[in-house]
Amino acid sequence: MPDLGALLWPRTVALVGASADAESLRGRIFKVMRGNAFAGRLYPVSRSSAEVLGLKAYPSIADLPEPADLAVIIIPAKHVAEELERCGKAGVKSAVVLSSGFAEASGDEGAGMQAEIRAIATRHDMAVLGPNSEGFANTANNLCPTFSPAMEAGERPLLPAGRPRGQLAVMAQSGGIGFAFFDHGRAKELSFRYIVTTGNEACLEVLDFAEFILEEGKTDALLLLLEDIKSPDTFRRVAEKALRAGKPLIVNKIGQSQAGVRAAASHTAALAGEYAAYQAMFQRYGLIEGRDLGEMVDFAAGFLAWGSRLPHGRRVGICTASGGGGGWMADACVAAGLEVPELDSETRRRIDEHLPAYGTSQNPIDATAQAAAKIGYAGLAGLVAPSPAVDGLIVVMTGRNPHNLERQKEALARLAAETTKPILMWSYTLPASRSVEILSEAGYPLYTGLQTCARTMRAMADYRALRERFLRPIEVRSGFASDKAGAKAALAAADTVLCEWDARPILARYGIGTNPLGTLAGSAEEAVAAAKKLGVPVALKVQSPDILHKTETGAVALGLGSPEEVNVAYARVLASAEQHAPAARIIGVLVQPMAPAGREVILGVKRDATFGPLLMVGLGGVHVEILKDVALAPVPLGHAEAREVLARLKGAALLDAYRGEPPADVDALIELMVRLSELAADNVDAIAEIDLNPVLVHECGKGVSVVDALIVKGLPSPR
Amino acid sequence: MPDLGALLWPRTVALVGASADAESLRGRIFKVMRGNAFAGRLYPVSRSSAEVLGLKAYPSIADLPEPADLAVIIIPAKHVAEELERCGKAGVKSAVVLSSGFAEASGDEGAGMQAEIRAIATRHDMAVLGPNSEGFANTANNLCPTFSPAMEAGERPLLPAGRPRGQLAVMAQSGGIGFAFFDHGRAKELSFRYIVTTGNEACLEVLDFAEFILEEGKTDALLLLLEDIKSPDTFRRVAEKALRAGKPLIVNKIGQSQAGVRAAASHTAALAGEYAAYQAMFQRYGLIEGRDLGEMVDFAAGFLAWGSRLPHGRRVGICTASGGGGGWMADACVAAGLEVPELDSETRRRIDEHLPAYGTSQNPIDATAQAAAKIGYAGLAGLVAPSPAVDGLIVVMTGRNPHNLERQKEALARLAAETTKPILMWSYTLPASRSVEILSEAGYPLYTGLQTCARTMRAMADYRALRERFLRPIEVRSGFASDKAGAKAALAAADTVLCEWDARPILARYGIGTNPLGTLAGSAEEAVAAAKKLGVPVALKVQSPDILHKTETGAVALGLGSPEEVNVAYARVLASAEQHAPAARIIGVLVQPMAPAGREVILGVKRDATFGPLLMVGLGGVHVEILKDVALAPVPLGHAEAREVLARLKGAALLDAYRGEPPADVDALIELMVRLSELAADNVDAIAEIDLNPVLVHECGKGVSVVDALIVKGLPSPR
Repeated sequence: MPDLGALLWPRTVALVGASADAESLRGRIFKVMRGNAFAGRLYPVSRSSAEVLGLKAYPSIADLPEPADLAVIIIPAKHVAEELERCGKAGVKSAVVLSSGFAEASGDEGAGMQAEIRAIATRHDMAVLGPNSEGFANTANNLCPTFSPAMEAGERPLLPAGRPRGQLAVMAQSGGIGFAFFDHGRAKELSFRYIVTTGNEACLEVLDFAEFILEEGKTDALLLLLEDIKSPDTFRRVAEKALRAGKPLIVNKIGQSQAGVRAAASHTAALAGEYAAYQAMFQRYGLIEGRDLGEMVDFAAGFLAWGSRLPHGRRVGICTASGGGGGWMADACVAAGLEVPELDSETRRRIDEHLPAYGTSQNPIDATAQAAAKIGYAGLAGLVAPSPAVDGLIVVMTGRNPHNLERQKEALARLAAETTKPILMWSYTLPASRSVEILSEAGYPLYTGLQTCARTMRAMADYRALRERFLRPIEVRSGFASDKAGAKAALAAADTVLCEWDARPILARYGIGTNPLGTLAGSAEEAVAAAKKLGVPVALKVQSPDILHKTETGAVALGLGSPEEVNVAYARVLASAEQHAPAARIIGVLVQPMAPAGREVILGVKRDATFGPLLMVGLGGVHVEILKDVALAPVPLGHAEAREVLARLKGAALLDAYRGEPPADVDALIELMVRLSELAADNVDAIAEIDLNPVLVHECGKGVSVVDALIVKGLPSPR
Repeated sequence: MPDLGALLWPRTVALVGASADAESLRGRIFKVMRGNAFAGRLYPVSRSSAEVLGLKAYPSIADLPEPADLAVIIIPAKHVAEELERCGKAGVKSAVVLSSGFAEASGDEGAGMQAEIRAIATRHDMAVLGPNSEGFANTANNLCPTFSPAMEAGERPLLPAGRPRGQLAVMAQSGGIGFAFFDHGRAKELSFRYIVTTGNEACLEVLDFAEFILEEGKTDALLLLLEDIKSPDTFRRVAEKALRAGKPLIVNKIGQSQAGVRAAASHTAALAGEYAAYQAMFQRYGLIEGRDLGEMVDFAAGFLAWGSRLPHGRRVGICTASGGGGGWMADACVAAGLEVPELDSETRRRIDEHLPAYGTSQNPIDATAQAAAKIGYAGLAGLVAPSPAVDGLIVVMTGRNPHNLERQKEALARLAAETTKPILMWSYTLPASRSVEILSEAGYPLYTGLQTCARTMRAMADYRALRERFLRPIEVRSGFASDKAGAKAALAAADTVLCEWDARPILARYGIGTNPLGTLAGSAEEAVAAAKKLGVPVALKVQSPDILHKTETGAVALGLGSPEEVNVAYARVLASAEQHAPAARIIGVLVQPMAPAGREVILGVKRDATFGPLLMVGLGGVHVEILKDVALAPVPLGHAEAREVLARLKGAALLDAYRGEPPADVDALIELMVRLSELAADNVDAIAEIDLNPVLVHECGKGVSVVDALIVKGLPSPR
């Protein structure tokens, strides 16, 4: 990995293609860079001018009085490689390529030039951002090599005035959106340390910068706009590093709706789309998904203010002077999965001393405008915060007029310093910018959206809970002493598709599917004999690597109660299989004792093209097949995480007691999930897909039965 | 109904309690009223001053030189009734009571004073707003009798400058939130005609003002914040009037999360909570629910701009110069239930002429910054709008710098005038206020949130579709010639709780449950004889008005295949019923032929305390009981609406073809819903609850079976 420090923290910068024409992109970069007083040395490089806006210009990068740490390149695409090579030879350590017309253009030419850039960067060990990047900003260094209008020096300095505060970094491929995060966040008085827009990512990707920034350790939250992830290993490393450090990654994955589902043999593969795999990874590592640009900035504002005092749970106290506003916020909190419990009587007693007859200390705590004006927002919130009934506070207020806040500033700052619980402010009016400043200085994020305010509190509580689980010593994996070598050998020897008869013995080596497998019959007589030996009722299932959907093709007969029925059904299932798949290789017909009743579950594994094997779980035939209610997680996974994954299902309650039936054996299902995840993790390269469909989860204490199984081998994934 | 015109459009206004003290609420009202140049005559009434801020003050309302049309009253609560009586006697036609301390205060005193106000208003036929109101604003008249800081005369006039445009009205009980809508919307250059905050609604409620405003006909969209609905008849009348006129009602119902579910006999009653009833009414009349204050204003902006050209469908074209922004907007559109289809080749060809190699005309149409700058937003959108593949457009742009828009203003205005499809603008940067002005003048709403932008397009498409259905001549009701009189007489004669044996004959008079009911047996012998006659398999069900949950109490035996089994089961179900409900009055045991298999549905009716009878439908036992997946609608309902109600179920797809099974007979289910809704509508006062649980929906063409039924009679609802 080349030195990102040279790119982000150069002392000497060459601007290759510098121009004084303020209408051109080249001129705009120069304007932005000069507008913000970069403390280092800036050298324009221009073939046509000896001077650019009062700075001496040099005809070539090779002519500079000292080697540049960073070259900012904005010249026609076809000259970029040549220039970059010149930079490398001149000892330039890093470059930002702002020029367009590379791999993003149709045709092969651009892609070819981009490959050349990559090769040159590698050869000279240069840190190269772009091409087709909109540049970056390092606010601590007043360095903004970008033509983004959002970074033009204006009425506001790059960083908010006042006391030092937690900092944010933005990384995005998209330049427009990347700098828009700054635009939104700066208006909320947030402090951005870096904005990096990576464009085509020929060399360096979003996550490389995230890693540098995490290691630097001066940034408290990262906003990432992801279009694709090129290296899943980097993702895992960066995500884990961030979670350990407690620096939240707030993300949006662009392209969710185009999640392509490739033609797949197993149900699992068909159900686990591309975006679902991203979500599984986000959930594993506690990345926080934002749906909107403003929402992501709002999430960050919460973490920057309260990162060291995140809520211990989801219970919120709401303080308000507006009954309507408090009620609406309570609805928003409940919609965000938070609780708004009644306060304890001791706290209520303390509050009631200050309220008029038409106020209420229940929750929302409606102080009325009169009492709120008297004791102030800080006074009110300070009374509520110590309540053992709440984990965090939301104050409903109006930021329209800053004078009122100006008076309360000290009390607010004192409360922010002392409280052990996070306090968010929601202004139902549009706040004056001075109000935002006052609250920010005092230590509070100010929200203008009900939903994002409530969702921020939820995200903070979830992040804390997930991180605490993640940091606990890893629990012991499944209790079963699996025969890893045996399974590996059997897999290696098997054909590409393993039907139940072939798959179950391998699964059994990991303690998966300990219910009886049955007998393989090659004739009706053998089937009848097997049924007699096993005891009726039995199921007959045609075994063939070419028949994956046995129910649909009539290649299964269930609940056969007598030898006669077995005899008749044998011919029928074979004929049906023959009719639907004349060319199928048939191994035989599996005669299997019927499993006792249970709730139907699908368990599976799918090797995602980006992230590798993911475990999938879904409930019941129709739930998974029609309602697509499934949850995914990367393998292996421990019991605690397996339980959480299961709880993510919309229909999770279907495993509970129901109509007098006892609850299902969820512990056995979780153990099965853990074992299956181990098998998948131990055989990443050999296994492409596994379906256990269905698994019957019997009543509590009676375990699970795997009543069909399929393994599809695959080429090692290309990573 | 008193004259709301006198209240909203007075020529003479008396301010009772006028004060020059700018720190007091009384002084602030005066400041707000004087700041906005009210064209009528304003008379301060003050006991203590002969002059207030340069205006002659009068000691009493009786002393004015002419009777006031409107009295604005802000004096201590205990004096309000006396003053109001004085107003009535002096011929004052209307009053706004801003004083607090009435029914909102704990204790009985305030409620008593409020009742007095109501009595005085009725006696003098005065239009009285409040008490505990924050007042109102009529911008056309420059009249703002309120102390809301949002209405203080400031840098902006009350109405946007420039050409006349569609107007908005806000009605809310909450003063703070009511005026906050104006604060948010004015910043978006929206034109508000009225803001009315109704406080305790002693006399006039939100919907009364909505009705006045609809009849006046000068307002194009209404924002309603509802805390409760006092008169469902007014709601129905106003909602229907608004829908007929095409004036969208954009609402939020505060208190969703506290939706109380009363202890209820039937499943239907337990599942249909208070907020669910509101939602059913909103859906019936096309009210648009907003989740956030800003979102409601954003919805309104869309309707004000495009109300006469709403989208014909949900297909959106997205124009962008930022690839990342376009991709993100596509995700937001899909999340909002919109489609982002590929454009037709003819349109693509026309667009491609303007794009560089690295742009795309697919959809999102990524013009690249270069081409977008050349042909402009209007040029680009104008190329896309005629495409037969889209019903509306979203333009992804940056409003940070207004100069660029200033140049395009005329082209944008021309496009807005000519397009037949709505065009929404999303700025990924925070727009300059001048940008908002330019776009608003040109005819476009400007969004800063991805989600609300997409959701606005969806809301507009849905509103159009629902309104068109609503305006079509009402279809013929159920085809069945129901015996209304017979059903009514049978209901009147019945006990409070009708178990299946009693309920089914009444239901049958409306053609509900034409599958065999079976025979009531009084002994095991009778049951066996009945089973022989009906043919096995049969079900046995204990019939008792005191046993409502037969399955849970073991009072049912299903699938009895022989006379012997019937004999044994008879004793068992009775013993079980006896054990669970020793005091239950038992009518007998119903012997019923087993219905053929089908998908399980629950159909029911619940009389909501506010809105009267609602029909409820849910799918399958576990879906409704554990997942609470139900949909509601007011009765009666036609076939088209019944179909829509069914489609609202999350598990609606469970009625489709599945695993080789044919689709369920949805038409028969819809006919059943319509018939049940007719029965409920014809017997509003007699029926409190109906459960048909389950209904089995057989395969397509084979109808439905009602296999259990329960009717609970109730006192007429108190309306």
